[in-house]
Amino acid sequence: MKSDILNVDNTPSLIKSVKTEYYQIPLAEVLSDAKHGDHTHFEVIVCKVLCQDGFEGVGYTYTGGKGGRAIYSLIEDELKPSLIGKDASRISQLWEEMTYHLHYVGRGGLLSFAISAVDIALWDIRCKRLGEPLWKVAGGHADRTRCYAGGIDLNFTQDKLLSNIQGYLDSGFKGVKIKVGKPDYREDVARVAAVRNLIGDDTIFMVDANYSLPVETAIRFAKAIEQYDIKWFEEPTLPDDYDGFARIAESTSIPLAMGENLHTVYEFNLAVQKSRLGFLQPDASNIGGITGWMKVANLAYINNLPICTHGMHELHVSLMSSQPHAGYMEVHSFPIDQYTIEKFTVDQNGNAVAPNVAGTGVEFDPALVGQYLIKQS
Amino acid sequence: MKSDILNVDNTPSLIKSVKTEYYQIPLAEVLSDAKHGDHTHFEVIVCKVLCQDGFEGVGYTYTGGKGGRAIYSLIEDELKPSLIGKDASRISQLWEEMTYHLHYVGRGGLLSFAISAVDIALWDIRCKRLGEPLWKVAGGHADRTRCYAGGIDLNFTQDKLLSNIQGYLDSGFKGVKIKVGKPDYREDVARVAAVRNLIGDDTIFMVDANYSLPVETAIRFAKAIEQYDIKWFEEPTLPDDYDGFARIAESTSIPLAMGENLHTVYEFNLAVQKSRLGFLQPDASNIGGITGWMKVANLAYINNLPICTHGMHELHVSLMSSQPHAGYMEVHSFPIDQYTIEKFTVDQNGNAVAPNVAGTGVEFDPALVGQYLIKQS
Ligand SMILES: [Mg+2]
Ligand SMILES: [Mg+2]
Repeated sequence: MKSDILNVDNTPSLIKSVKTEYYQIPLAEVLSDAKHGDHTHFEVIVCKVLCQDGFEGVGYTYTGGKGGRAIYSLIEDELKPSLIGKDASRISQLWEEMTYHLHYVGRGGLLSFAISAVDIALWDIRCKRLGEPLWKVAGGHADRTRCYAGGIDLNFTQDKLLSNIQGYLDSGFKGVKIKVGKPDYREDVARVAAVRNLIGDDTIFMVDANYSLPVETAIRFAKAIEQYDIKWFEEPTLPDDYDGFARIAESTSIPLAMGENLHTVYEFNLAVQKSRLGFLQPDASNIGGITGWMKVANLAYINNLPICTHGMHELHVSLMSSQPHAGYMEVHSFPIDQYTIEKFTVDQNGNAVAPNVAGTGVEFDPALVGQYLIKQS
Repeated sequence: MKSDILNVDNTPSLIKSVKTEYYQIPLAEVLSDAKHGDHTHFEVIVCKVLCQDGFEGVGYTYTGGKGGRAIYSLIEDELKPSLIGKDASRISQLWEEMTYHLHYVGRGGLLSFAISAVDIALWDIRCKRLGEPLWKVAGGHADRTRCYAGGIDLNFTQDKLLSNIQGYLDSGFKGVKIKVGKPDYREDVARVAAVRNLIGDDTIFMVDANYSLPVETAIRFAKAIEQYDIKWFEEPTLPDDYDGFARIAESTSIPLAMGENLHTVYEFNLAVQKSRLGFLQPDASNIGGITGWMKVANLAYINNLPICTHGMHELHVSLMSSQPHAGYMEVHSFPIDQYTIEKFTVDQNGNAVAPNVAGTGVEFDPALVGQYLIKQS
């Protein structure tokens, strides 16, 4: 809600300009899941906020290939005019303003992606001004976090699925996730069995149905794979069916996870209250940036739930590291980190290491992304 | 959810082209409410769907002045490519496809506005093909519906507020609604008292806080105005606070209403289950068009609740007329109807009359809107 009762004498850090860039980056091969179909590329929308005192913050969001131009419009046509001249240090106030400025056409959905890009840029400025890395500014619990490799592999043959998983193990990952949601769930069961057989007992293993299953089928499938020690069952059914999640959770010993399709903190609150989740997975690129992600992280904390993530691991590594109740961070199959200056790394214990530079540690390398630029302001 | 088990031999009506138009239409004077601030203009995004057999449908959505260019992008860049060549008669299938095609960046929010414009065009085609008006095709209960004039008048002095209300009465309206949400709720109480004094006992009277009030203040205000026979208290607090609505409803005899900020049918379902509402107010421009509106109308029916509307009365008049459980239709202060060919009319009993032409009865007059066209495809 709105209020402006500030009365301080520090110098504001006024926003001088906002620049937006829109990229379409091709994937090395077509990646599929049960609900979104084939992914041939992903979109990245970068938002650069420059302050009058010279500090510049870089924020961004991404999509699975659709909607990026509308996000570009929301930032350029709607948010930018209301940001120029404002104090970049007052992130909470700007976040509320952006939320309510466009609330009638917003309330989550696409607007949350646009706000996320701006908010991340504001946090980048805050970190740079402090001269500290994001993992410290956001909490400072640790400089690294547990992670797993998240495959988008529903279209892979079982042979290819297994060689892809072997690649993750060879890269040092201690956890893997596969897609499920084949037309006949028994094929999913067979793939789960084959993967567990390959990875052995000590590798963390999750499955993700991308909300493709009827509740009845999700329960049947969950019962069939309980024997394979599944860490979580992600998005078994429609994210709007909070009660359906609860019915599934009551029917299986496998914990449920969700979050990538919840785009307001209120939706996470409903999910916690109703859906009997085991893990929360907010994505800072679509929950309102770092400000939104931290609100969900706090919600998880006070509900004794591990906080996890979806996508953009090159940024989430700092947020997850910062938190005492971090679960497992997804290292996503959209390799945004391959286009950044600071490189994403996993240590010898399979933990992702947060960048130790002032800022979020995520800036895009023009030499790498330049060829994929579609438009910019 | 998806399925394609159709096996019929009728001739499909294939979509040949989709054209989109974006307008910014100025208001005659600045209109204000408690949460969105000043409105100086509204946006209209028109979507025209042309079939290979010559039928053309006109759909549209609108905003309070923000987000229209992003809606234009969603229709042009994302929905249109997936519509060309499809059978326009299979509205249910196209609606699901649009919903899930963009679900990751959607799930309500801005996407619902874009889908609405397309969906209304598809219904227009269906009606034209049948040679029937929408009020019949959508149900056929009646050809007219009760309505009220919805003021956007929070910035008006009390004198101007009263003369504005008098204007509604002089135009034949039998119901009026005013905005509330002044910094001191006692000023709202005084305005409510003055309006009830002006309109007498026989005029329906609602108030609308545009979700600006803390729950505590909303309860205090509702208790204070119970004596003025208020038909409903609209959006007292944040639409995401379903439980807060219930706390208010339990504290007052005035029924609550909401809907303009709920952009999925699932959100309406949660509101019905949790918020103890008296009236549902879906807006076909942001709930997924006529298909979405009808789903909410059915939800209202099976929960014994009157169905009402927000905005775009020139279209809603047909939907409300079609339904047996219609409550009161808002005649909104954004005068979209002044730019259409078929004129919106209220009969001598204060009922809004549905257009008796084949189609939705809403086509824009280029001579009237042409000057406000910003871009088109
Ligand atoms: Mg997932
Ligand atoms: Mg209203």
